[in-house]
Amino acid sequence: MKHISSRDNPAIKHLQALAGSARDRRKAGETLLDGTHLLEVALQHGVAPLQVVVSESGRLQPEIESLLARCTPDSLVEVPDRLFAQISPVDSPSGVLARVEIPDSPAAPVQGNCVVLDAVQDPGNLGTILRTAAAVGLRDVVLTPGCAQAWSPRVLRAAMGAHFHLDIREGVEAAATLAGYPGQILAADLVDATDLYDIDLGGPVAWLFGSEGQGLSDGVAALATRRIIIPMPGGMESLNVGVAAAVCLFEQLRQGRASGR
Amino acid sequence: MKHISSRDNPAIKHLQALAGSARDRRKAGETLLDGTHLLEVALQHGVAPLQVVVSESGRLQPEIESLLARCTPDSLVEVPDRLFAQISPVDSPSGVLARVEIPDSPAAPVQGNCVVLDAVQDPGNLGTILRTAAAVGLRDVVLTPGCAQAWSPRVLRAAMGAHFHLDIREGVEAAATLAGYPGQILAADLVDATDLYDIDLGGPVAWLFGSEGQGLSDGVAALATRRIIIPMPGGMESLNVGVAAAVCLFEQLRQGRASGR
Repeated sequence: MKHISSRDNPAIKHLQALAGSARDRRKAGETLLDGTHLLEVALQHGVAPLQVVVSESGRLQPEIESLLARCTPDSLVEVPDRLFAQISPVDSPSGVLARVEIPDSPAAPVQGNCVVLDAVQDPGNLGTILRTAAAVGLRDVVLTPGCAQAWSPRVLRAAMGAHFHLDIREGVEAAATLAGYPGQILAADLVDATDLYDIDLGGPVAWLFGSEGQGLSDGVAALATRRIIIPMPGGMESLNVGVAAAVCLFEQLRQGRASGR
Repeated sequence: MKHISSRDNPAIKHLQALAGSARDRRKAGETLLDGTHLLEVALQHGVAPLQVVVSESGRLQPEIESLLARCTPDSLVEVPDRLFAQISPVDSPSGVLARVEIPDSPAAPVQGNCVVLDAVQDPGNLGTILRTAAAVGLRDVVLTPGCAQAWSPRVLRAAMGAHFHLDIREGVEAAATLAGYPGQILAADLVDATDLYDIDLGGPVAWLFGSEGQGLSDGVAALATRRIIIPMPGGMESLNVGVAAAVCLFEQLRQGRASGR
């Protein structure tokens, strides 16, 4: 296993750039997976890391050791703990991280159930929605240009491996992606809206969710074939966007199971 | 209106302590509400702030001005913008904050639907669950000693005013609070569990949710009359705890509406 101990090593500088900068990740087409869980899920899905970095103390952990055994030996790099902490994008470094390619956005139009997020900028909310989408078995997620970067370390962390279950289209225009969409296009809204629980959610549904502060942009809202409202009898004005998405996606799952679809 | 410009003023030091320290908030029995939305909801619910601090530029905003008009004149303090930023517990100071008493935990046993959170430490998740609970119209929330402080500025921010719709019992033992509970006590779990959508959620339900990493502690899990699982056909291992709570609470709401309860 290669050993690097200098923070001036170009490989280290490249990892630090990926950890800290959305622009550098985009330019390189690469990101970092921090921790055993993300690396485990990536390997399960056939991802071959470009590089796997382990800290000296991380290497002593049996769970990390068995993950390293599943990676190409040439890709492994050991670094001192102190240097690992300077690379790791998270506050409590886990001892292992992997540099991987960001998959290309699929080019084919979306046909099945999908979630379209319009300018959702909070990485925690974005990651939570990806996690929920993957949990219900949905495949396609579309992110407009104003969203947080889906493959950023913070979003990856919140999504707990969901990225590898999904086809994520980043930085695309919702109108183009949904042109000719064969199902309902539903937008969560608060006025002139139909109660979520009064709608038949059979057939493909494209769910549109906007940022909490701003809601949907006019252009994206105009794509909706129907506006829906989640009932809130308790008198709150709104829900967290990750919660709103979960309530909608799980209601669709429930209806599908109840009708044997 | 009083004007303070020195950061050495004891009132300013007290505000800074409340902004930054859970222990100081607990000791004083006070917290800070940052921003117009929280102050607006608090005033709607009859809360009388002990002190309302406005920045010089905040005072020029009509929305803030009309809120100040609804507060006791003696409670108002104006400070320079720079000093306000040093007090405000949030990254982008809104221009107004209020010092308020933290309500006492109700002593009466819980009788109706309730949420019990066991060692949920992430302030964003905790606040999101409070927001969801208030949205469905639930009243009682019980937090075990290991939870984040419910009245911290970060939880208040994520909950968007939900605190004022709820009776929050903090730092209490779940076993004592649920002694003699007249309904089902349901724990989200992954083994030996009944599908959420196969359960009749009529009658009072106490929902138990644990932290994401640790799950429920043994003592709290033992209180459950039944274990439930949220179906995840997509192959993810788990959901964000705020999402799990939302799926459960909204399924209960849906069933209640469907059966006319």
